[in-house]
Amino acid sequence: MFESANISQMTSQAYAIGVDFGTASARTLLLDLRSGEELALSELAYPHGVIDATLPETSERLPVDWALHDPDDYRYVLEEGIRGVLAQRPGAAGRVVGIGIDATSCTVLPVTADGTPLCELPNWRARPHAWPKLWKHHAAQYVANRLNEVASERREAFLGRYGGRISSEWYFPKLIEIWLEDRAVYEATGAFLEVTDWVVWHLSGRERRSACPAAYKALWSEADGIPSTAFFEAAYPGFSQPGAKLGTGFLPLGSSAGPLRPELAAKLGLPGRVAVAVGNVDSFVSFPGAGAEGAGTYVMVVGTSICDLVVHQREITLSGITGVAKDGIVPGLYGYEAGQPAVGDMLGWFGDILSPPEGKSTVDVLPGLERAAAVLAPGQTGLVALDWWNGNRSVLADADLSGVVAGLTLSTTTADIYRALLESIAFGNKAVLDNFRDAGFELNEIVACGGIAEKSPLLMQMFADVCGTTVRVPASSQVPARGSALFGAVAAGREASGYGTIAEAAKALGPPAGPAYKPAPNATATYGEVYRIWKDLHDMLGRAQPTWLHELKRLKLLAAPGPGQAVTTPT
Amino acid sequence: MFESANISQMTSQAYAIGVDFGTASARTLLLDLRSGEELALSELAYPHGVIDATLPETSERLPVDWALHDPDDYRYVLEEGIRGVLAQRPGAAGRVVGIGIDATSCTVLPVTADGTPLCELPNWRARPHAWPKLWKHHAAQYVANRLNEVASERREAFLGRYGGRISSEWYFPKLIEIWLEDRAVYEATGAFLEVTDWVVWHLSGRERRSACPAAYKALWSEADGIPSTAFFEAAYPGFSQPGAKLGTGFLPLGSSAGPLRPELAAKLGLPGRVAVAVGNVDSFVSFPGAGAEGAGTYVMVVGTSICDLVVHQREITLSGITGVAKDGIVPGLYGYEAGQPAVGDMLGWFGDILSPPEGKSTVDVLPGLERAAAVLAPGQTGLVALDWWNGNRSVLADADLSGVVAGLTLSTTTADIYRALLESIAFGNKAVLDNFRDAGFELNEIVACGGIAEKSPLLMQMFADVCGTTVRVPASSQVPARGSALFGAVAAGREASGYGTIAEAAKALGPPAGPAYKPAPNATATYGEVYRIWKDLHDMLGRAQPTWLHELKRLKLLAAPGPGQAVTTPT
Repeated sequence: MFESANISQMTSQAYAIGVDFGTASARTLLLDLRSGEELALSELAYPHGVIDATLPETSERLPVDWALHDPDDYRYVLEEGIRGVLAQRPGAAGRVVGIGIDATSCTVLPVTADGTPLCELPNWRARPHAWPKLWKHHAAQYVANRLNEVASERREAFLGRYGGRISSEWYFPKLIEIWLEDRAVYEATGAFLEVTDWVVWHLSGRERRSACPAAYKALWSEADGIPSTAFFEAAYPGFSQPGAKLGTGFLPLGSSAGPLRPELAAKLGLPGRVAVAVGNVDSFVSFPGAGAEGAGTYVMVVGTSICDLVVHQREITLSGITGVAKDGIVPGLYGYEAGQPAVGDMLGWFGDILSPPEGKSTVDVLPGLERAAAVLAPGQTGLVALDWWNGNRSVLADADLSGVVAGLTLSTTTADIYRALLESIAFGNKAVLDNFRDAGFELNEIVACGGIAEKSPLLMQMFADVCGTTVRVPASSQVPARGSALFGAVAAGREASGYGTIAEAAKALGPPAGPAYKPAPNATATYGEVYRIWKDLHDMLGRAQPTWLHELKRLKLLAAPGPGQAVTTPT
Repeated sequence: MFESANISQMTSQAYAIGVDFGTASARTLLLDLRSGEELALSELAYPHGVIDATLPETSERLPVDWALHDPDDYRYVLEEGIRGVLAQRPGAAGRVVGIGIDATSCTVLPVTADGTPLCELPNWRARPHAWPKLWKHHAAQYVANRLNEVASERREAFLGRYGGRISSEWYFPKLIEIWLEDRAVYEATGAFLEVTDWVVWHLSGRERRSACPAAYKALWSEADGIPSTAFFEAAYPGFSQPGAKLGTGFLPLGSSAGPLRPELAAKLGLPGRVAVAVGNVDSFVSFPGAGAEGAGTYVMVVGTSICDLVVHQREITLSGITGVAKDGIVPGLYGYEAGQPAVGDMLGWFGDILSPPEGKSTVDVLPGLERAAAVLAPGQTGLVALDWWNGNRSVLADADLSGVVAGLTLSTTTADIYRALLESIAFGNKAVLDNFRDAGFELNEIVACGGIAEKSPLLMQMFADVCGTTVRVPASSQVPARGSALFGAVAAGREASGYGTIAEAAKALGPPAGPAYKPAPNATATYGEVYRIWKDLHDMLGRAQPTWLHELKRLKLLAAPGPGQAVTTPT
């Protein structure tokens, strides 16, 4: 009976698939494009996880700050994830009209001219630089430092789009790292691709690159292209074809890369007409995924790190953001990104510190700390912390800063420290929000999503109390995958029962409302006092005297130089 | 055969007993006054330990920052300790010529006119203020703050002897705390005694107070007595007889309090002629105990806290010390004290933080951290810490400062933090040493003793590397008890086979030489760079902007006021 009912509704019903490629796992969502219901979900860990100790099939130890992925893991989670959601909903396959994907960025891999990952070729498999480098591979910091130095000296205009500073996580530091350290891999590379673009190639059989990661991570803009060869030559003489591995002709978000590759459609049991959306980035896709579609909403994606997203009709110049790009988040608008690079990572670090190596995992420690920290009052810890465990992305844009805890006494407890770390995240976010507001953005609504938005009501209440603004958390664990599914629907288009624009899709298919955290006036008042101390310390160590923390980092590298810091002679 | 040999040497042989009353236990040493050999040792924990949770025999919870002792524990460890060492050396009792003791300070108890502890009388037993208050009872901080405020306003000259600041641990804050919070206990108190003086009273049957704790902890000097009534009245109107519970006529170090009380001598099996030395303080007694006797030697007693001791022929005015007193350490010389209030305590705190409540104790954690930290190089942690977990005693003399760790990253390990804490102790000590040197003290020799001097070769090497000076650690675990035994020998005098002066005794009976830690030039150079950062941070947070940490403490107290901070109306 259900079957016949479904068949009768087939023409009006349409589904899209969104796949969200994260750091350790991927989530595949089957979304109903009429009701917005999350019909089925599959979450699969990458079989090889994050590769940061030894290179697979070798005993070669990776240097510090390295982080790789295995590209076959992407194929595995993609195909198994789609099979998984379709298996949960018999009859659904025929209703799928589009697929959208997002991935971490800048996560990049060298491929041959036909899109084969270099590390899958026997000749190159034992070469670390032939493997995909994860966003959090930080061994190219020395390249980023050099590029920043030269860009500042030359007063390069492109810096204005990136808050004045390039990150070591981005495209060119990672590409030049290969050029410097393994020239043979560099020469053998046909293209150096974002994972999101490589997966779209795998899905559609076409090399269709997305303008979004290019704009935020590869210093590209539609108006100006990439920085000049003169700039790159000034930093690295001989690096004379900067665009050689990047390609051109990026497609805007919301475009279709074409239909699903026939062999793959057959393999997965999907119709051949399913549209594949141009790839997106995991943080940005959360903006429409959370139901946001225009100016006035401040979307925070709270996970390993925090990504803060804002859109506006105009291009507003402000420092201390990660990047701004036209069409970068919502086509037609300027998309602004800012953020904090260590959030879940910092809390996990604290859990690890407290867990003896042989003992219990952080999974055991953090919920207990969360409960113990929740009974403390604002100000009660006697602590302030600066959340610079992985540098500061906004508003100081200084990767060489490091974390600080002040106010420790013999009666300080682990719950006090945990709460101070949460507060440091909230204070850091207030600084980001104030930076936008001071530049003229009217931001009346805060929407928080991501794993920690669900897991830590305490942190959400702190955001509200510290910022004095209500924080809404959508009742969906799959905001990025929802966003990708929406882009799949837009790739399919209105004519195929999809949507015409992402704004239209976001408006129609926002996730159900979840908890709203309202600021408590007493807490806001006390946090105002703590924030003044935090801000003074932040400005002292981050602006007036950053050399103190920079010097500590320099001395650390001197005492134990990591192989990643040593520039090997190009072969 | 041994017995007859011993008997033949009896006239030339002389022994002394030294008893060192610590925070958790007491150590009794039988010392050979000819060879310097440590003949027998007894260490006994106080049966009631540190009383900081509930008052004995009641369910009354003690407020935060309280720390009490049970006076009967002093009798128990004294008598059992002496019995214990005599039992280990049959025939030794007859050769004992003197007993010296030292205790923590300012640890004070209210007694009746005949020396009975008030808390041992049924009427007063349930009153917390009737019990001995341990040095680390910090609930009188509010009194100390008020006294400091008024003393500064009135430009009281006595402040010059205490580095400009009174500690909450000292005599008058603790006495006025009783006067304010339990007037009936105050009125019933005949005398408010240092434990060292109370034990001497118990031993000799005579109230014979020592000038040493009076000078360092009760604001007394031979020349000026205690501060004026006008000063105390200005701070606390109605507190008009400041000396009423203190007594007068303090005896200098090296004096005899008289012979052992006959009943006690009989009870312990000791000769009636055994001389009892006037009481001493546990830190100061380490100076002669370590074999130091004059200017030029910097003695560090490294345990729960660090006490730095220096003597000089002249009175040199310098700020940032804890106190200076003529005859205070070695009779005839000016004795200077400085220090760091959280050393072993801070390391223990870190061990506790890392130990889940149900899990392993700090005894398990710290040696592993010590081993892991020892393989790191200077500068390699990327961290600097300010060791202000219990405020700063020297050179800032600011109890309201609190600890800081800077330089934290996602790769920071527990070993890194532990090493940074050790380095913070060494840097803090360099600041103390430099303060003395800058004031004109020529200090060519560093001698370190105390539990941590033996337990942490890593910290000793750091002292040497950071200060650029060799650090010698005597090969004795019983430096304070040795020092007390020497004072026992001086109380007995030359005529009774003892010694004429403490300097003479220290010179003759220094402990055997132990390890000498020589500075490593490379380490000294690197630490020079780290120290510059440390000093900048120290001066910023401790001198230029101390209000940041002060404000954190104020907000903490506001959020959760401890009963100790609430001044109850005098009854």
